[in-house]
Amino acid sequence: MLTLPQLKQHVLEANLDLPRHKLVTFTWGNVSAVDRERGVMVIKPSGVEYEHMHADDMVVMDLASGQTIEGSKKPSSDTATHLALYREFSDVGGIVHTHSRHATIWAQAGLDLPAWGTTHADYFYGTIPCTRLMTPEEIEHDYELETGHVIIETFRQRNISPKDIPAVLVNAHGPFAWGKDAHNAVHNAVVLEEIAYMGIFSRQLTPNLNHMQQELLDKHYLRKHGKNAYYGQ
Amino acid sequence: MLTLPQLKQHVLEANLDLPRHKLVTFTWGNVSAVDRERGVMVIKPSGVEYEHMHADDMVVMDLASGQTIEGSKKPSSDTATHLALYREFSDVGGIVHTHSRHATIWAQAGLDLPAWGTTHADYFYGTIPCTRLMTPEEIEHDYELETGHVIIETFRQRNISPKDIPAVLVNAHGPFAWGKDAHNAVHNAVVLEEIAYMGIFSRQLTPNLNHMQQELLDKHYLRKHGKNAYYGQ
Amino acid sequence: MLTLPQLKQHVLEANLDLPRHKLVTFTWGNVSAVDRERGVMVIKPSGVEYEHMHADDMVVMDLASGQTIEGSKKPSSDTATHLALYREFSDVGGIVHTHSRHATIWAQAGLDLPAWGTTHADYFYGTIPCTRLMTPEEIEHDYELETGHVIIETFRQRNISPKDIPAVLVNAHGPFAWGKDAHNAVHNAVVLEEIAYMGIFSRQLTPNLNHMQQELLDKHYLRKHGKNAYYGQ
Amino acid sequence: MLTLPQLKQHVLEANLDLPRHKLVTFTWGNVSAVDRERGVMVIKPSGVEYEHMHADDMVVMDLASGQTIEGSKKPSSDTATHLALYREFSDVGGIVHTHSRHATIWAQAGLDLPAWGTTHADYFYGTIPCTRLMTPEEIEHDYELETGHVIIETFRQRNISPKDIPAVLVNAHGPFAWGKDAHNAVHNAVVLEEIAYMGIFSRQLTPNLNHMQQELLDKHYLRKHGKNAYYGQ
Repeated sequence: MLTLPQLKQHVLEANLDLPRHKLVTFTWGNVSAVDRERGVMVIKPSGVEYEHMHADDMVVMDLASGQTIEGSKKPSSDTATHLALYREFSDVGGIVHTHSRHATIWAQAGLDLPAWGTTHADYFYGTIPCTRLMTPEEIEHDYELETGHVIIETFRQRNISPKDIPAVLVNAHGPFAWGKDAHNAVHNAVVLEEIAYMGIFSRQLTPNLNHMQQELLDKHYLRKHGKNAYYGQ
Repeated sequence: MLTLPQLKQHVLEANLDLPRHKLVTFTWGNVSAVDRERGVMVIKPSGVEYEHMHADDMVVMDLASGQTIEGSKKPSSDTATHLALYREFSDVGGIVHTHSRHATIWAQAGLDLPAWGTTHADYFYGTIPCTRLMTPEEIEHDYELETGHVIIETFRQRNISPKDIPAVLVNAHGPFAWGKDAHNAVHNAVVLEEIAYMGIFSRQLTPNLNHMQQELLDKHYLRKHGKNAYYGQ
Repeated sequence: MLTLPQLKQHVLEANLDLPRHKLVTFTWGNVSAVDRERGVMVIKPSGVEYEHMHADDMVVMDLASGQTIEGSKKPSSDTATHLALYREFSDVGGIVHTHSRHATIWAQAGLDLPAWGTTHADYFYGTIPCTRLMTPEEIEHDYELETGHVIIETFRQRNISPKDIPAVLVNAHGPFAWGKDAHNAVHNAVVLEEIAYMGIFSRQLTPNLNHMQQELLDKHYLRKHGKNAYYGQ
Repeated sequence: MLTLPQLKQHVLEANLDLPRHKLVTFTWGNVSAVDRERGVMVIKPSGVEYEHMHADDMVVMDLASGQTIEGSKKPSSDTATHLALYREFSDVGGIVHTHSRHATIWAQAGLDLPAWGTTHADYFYGTIPCTRLMTPEEIEHDYELETGHVIIETFRQRNISPKDIPAVLVNAHGPFAWGKDAHNAVHNAVVLEEIAYMGIFSRQLTPNLNHMQQELLDKHYLRKHGKNAYYGQ
């Protein structure tokens, strides 16, 4: 288990990976991680430039109450969304939100991203859902928390496991991705961006493109995940 | 308040940010700033390469008369457009003109860029307008000044505040963006380029894409701008 | 003829060329080479990051049996596909598999990539085929080997020589390319990615675009390949 | 006037600008310059990698006879096209051929690139033509020379001045651009690539996009070219 200073360093580095992977412009995007034993979430501060960010700028918050425990800066404006997801998705250790170009294009278009190839299947076990439009009430009242709720609703109603599909497209907004820790969440966000790009043009070439075969989806997802995985060392 | 040498340095640096953000090719593009107390505008010289530009190359002009006060070089060929905008848009402190690829694509297509997502809403409070075609007379007589006039006409006729929508697409030409200073103008030009890119492909995925919900536009714009803003430190 | 350590170094360098040419993200992609006199194939290990890869990590395998002869790491998960292709395509000295963006887009769309210009014709003597969908049985039973078989079937049924068309698009997956050695295979993969990109948008501009003229295809291919070639020093 | 060693250096540097501006992959592309007083053309050697190219590798050829005067390497395989253009287009001092992605896309689509904005108008005084398909006889007999002839035919039949439109799209092949010297030719090739990119997506947004207004084309072209130019220092 990481110490709290190590966890802050881990979250800092995961945040710095966002510009490195060209997932963010300016200060857009934020990464967090959770320590469930300590009951805390560590998250990027709001609106601070990546080149001036230090581990001590990371904000430590109580997972249950959402109160700041450590850190002098205001946490990311999307904090309430992160907290809601950690409370509901008990396997998730890290969360990332970006406006990465091609995932955001799908979110703006209000469309799910279907599984159209093995790149998708290697990481996501089926369609990546796009949330429904939020109601005026949800937007006006506790918007960031309600963003979390609409994500959770999407996964519940469609009966999707957040472990099998570690990302979502928030309608007219952009993607959230997650994983076992902050690093893994960013990894999944990079893959999402890649398949979002390829999906746009696969669909341009074949407008009514079918979902990939279920057997191929199974094969690729399960050779990298679960008890029969045989990929990697 | 900046001294005049500081303002020249500020304008130089804002100009150098254009190639850094990949908004310009060769010497295309120009940034200016205004000092309303001194009644002067500082602008990039015409057709000088970025790598050979110095603060002293910036041209200082009288805002009222448009005469050069300091500097041995000819000012940007788009100078008259900048001057017209500063005279009319009294809150604007810096202006940038580029032929950045995706904003220019919308300008060439002669289309407004609608608000289709929160990336747009974080910076622009609604549709970014594309100007009408200029008349042959406007083009032949005092073209650069008339370019300014057609921008101003667009904002007046549509009743848009240049503070709420800090950019415009000049038909068959390219974008102008502005802000409280030259740095902020360039920042807005970068965002414009980003949403212009995403808009092309959001519309490809969903051809008759509706504008985003007014409530979501309000929420995002107003959480970053105005008296109830809560984004950033 | 290369010594075995030299061949490992050659395969390592060809693998490192993949991120250099932006053909891969993370550890996706793998390159191998064959030494037909020694009866061995050398291939990248599975799931190792490029920056931590050394020549000694390359896995040496018996071409006939597919058994590991040298190396402590597990070979690439696509090993069986490479072996099948070397056994069938007797002129091939190196093979590369990637999920490079634009070739993968064609594979996901399930479409052949037609010869639409001289860039294509300089390297590929006609249409680059996309394989048929695999059957559930092929996917479930010895998937990677069957991937090789469906590639071979495609070339046989269409009567294509792997020397004339040194690449294939595996349906809903991505490209394999090959060449006289590992370096040449990567070279062909770069060209494939380039023409896959251009093909998407050539077809967007002219939706029912005809194949290029046979005479022009002959001219360009044959001025670089075969006994009457006159390109290069 | 440059000495011959200076001209070789100029041609070398113009060739090295091609990868710098991302106009070429591998050894694709070639730049030449002419010295009309000496009656010679200097051109890149065939198939040599950019990183290993030296001024002395440039090949000096007699403009009239096409014979090599200096240099131990074979000249670019497109040499006969360059020679034909210099002989016909008497104002041209430098020529560049590339397979740059977006200009090549238009060439592969077999379409002219219309003037759709001021970026185009700043450099090209109207539509950039795409040549007709070559006949089987032209392709089989003296192909590279006939490529030059079909370019010349295009400009003659459409009554276009190569000074006003310093580029062409060779059908199913790619662009040639030219200028007063090799450096200026490369500059025009960069602009062509830029407007070719923007044109693809301007046309996607507005499928039946009209040519830009003649008055605006005149204004922009003539403020940078000819006796009334007022752009630059």
